[in-house]
Amino acid sequence: MPSLGVIPIEGMGEVRPGDAIGTLIVEAAQSQATPIATGDCLVVTQKIVSKAEHRLVELDHSDFAARAELIASETVRVLRRRGDLVITETRHGFVCANAGVDLSNVDDGYAALLPIDGDRSAHRIRNAIRAAIGVDVAVVISDTFGRPWRHGLTDVAIGVAGIAAVVDLRGQSDDRGQELRVTEVAVADEIAAAAELVMGKATGVPVAIVRGLDPSWFRDGSVHELIRPVEDDLFR
Amino acid sequence: MPSLGVIPIEGMGEVRPGDAIGTLIVEAAQSQATPIATGDCLVVTQKIVSKAEHRLVELDHSDFAARAELIASETVRVLRRRGDLVITETRHGFVCANAGVDLSNVDDGYAALLPIDGDRSAHRIRNAIRAAIGVDVAVVISDTFGRPWRHGLTDVAIGVAGIAAVVDLRGQSDDRGQELRVTEVAVADEIAAAAELVMGKATGVPVAIVRGLDPSWFRDGSVHELIRPVEDDLFR
Repeated sequence: MPSLGVIPIEGMGEVRPGDAIGTLIVEAAQSQATPIATGDCLVVTQKIVSKAEHRLVELDHSDFAARAELIASETVRVLRRRGDLVITETRHGFVCANAGVDLSNVDDGYAALLPIDGDRSAHRIRNAIRAAIGVDVAVVISDTFGRPWRHGLTDVAIGVAGIAAVVDLRGQSDDRGQELRVTEVAVADEIAAAAELVMGKATGVPVAIVRGLDPSWFRDGSVHELIRPVEDDLFR
Repeated sequence: MPSLGVIPIEGMGEVRPGDAIGTLIVEAAQSQATPIATGDCLVVTQKIVSKAEHRLVELDHSDFAARAELIASETVRVLRRRGDLVITETRHGFVCANAGVDLSNVDDGYAALLPIDGDRSAHRIRNAIRAAIGVDVAVVISDTFGRPWRHGLTDVAIGVAGIAAVVDLRGQSDDRGQELRVTEVAVADEIAAAAELVMGKATGVPVAIVRGLDPSWFRDGSVHELIRPVEDDLFR
């Protein structure tokens, strides 16, 4: 089994509304001498996707009522509320704090909302890279979510293109020849987590290449594979 | 920022009760010409740790009453129950399915229980490697857990040695110079997830090297950093 490489893409500079992220990534990767190759999976953080896709909205960070209203507008269901914090289900089906409304890494006076359709954002980047250099890559859009029960945040996938979000190993046999029962692996979330290890939160690295993934995972996937239906969910 | 490498360790063979896993890892890494080096983090799956630490117990897999009794004996709190599935809090404070009692990758007639103290297991492996080759490594013991709301399983940490489980970036400023509010990153969980990408579930790779992690994370850590106190938890 081959090794995996996780390579940060630095020097992308400031992303602005309307920017073509795919083109910026290709240029930054070339200028640091790690050209993008077939079989690569690019992990792109939500922040630059939201900026490029005009998902910044004006918000006075000290105006808590306006902030609450903005969060409510992105919410389809409130799961829990405590003080300033509200755990919500977004239109996409993600459960996260404050409906993904983000005040960090944006200028004061603005908030970043989640991309409207993370899969579409990922496809747009994938298509731009194919158009620029003729290489098919997978793309994962990542964001930073909390979890119940476990302390600390991890990065997860909020959009994918050209790669499975969940790989189903059910029915394959384990190394004792017994049938594996529960082995649907959320590979897109694990890829997002791996990429976060080279990004940090305060280092301004918004993209990483994950190189060497199992080729069988490269297919037409969707982040919907990661959304647990409400009727299957014991905690909603 | 340097790249990360995730290198599977193959050819460890069958682990048996009482085996010194640290020694087996050193030998397997040397025989595949990827010797362990300072700054490496070894991710070791729970299954081989439980086997080595005599945490296999006899269980007829078709005896559902005996299985339920075994799960109950590992449980301090039941969060949800549906049919065959029970979501429990273990003695360690982990919330997972069936109190971590595992019937896959063990011989029929047996079940694998979680290590009694994952940090101690990790320290034992770290100490054995230092004794064998004089190299200080970090160790993460990993297991495969489900999550509420999100479909698919991911690997998380159930024990650490020589590395932080959660890295606290609070108070550092983000790339706009603003203070980051919520940036405690569960790096041990992200390291476990990254390693799973080269392990698969059916390939018999129980150990991976994660190479190139931020040196500032290498300190005396504990998996307790990852346990969210009940009083802070909105979902328990």
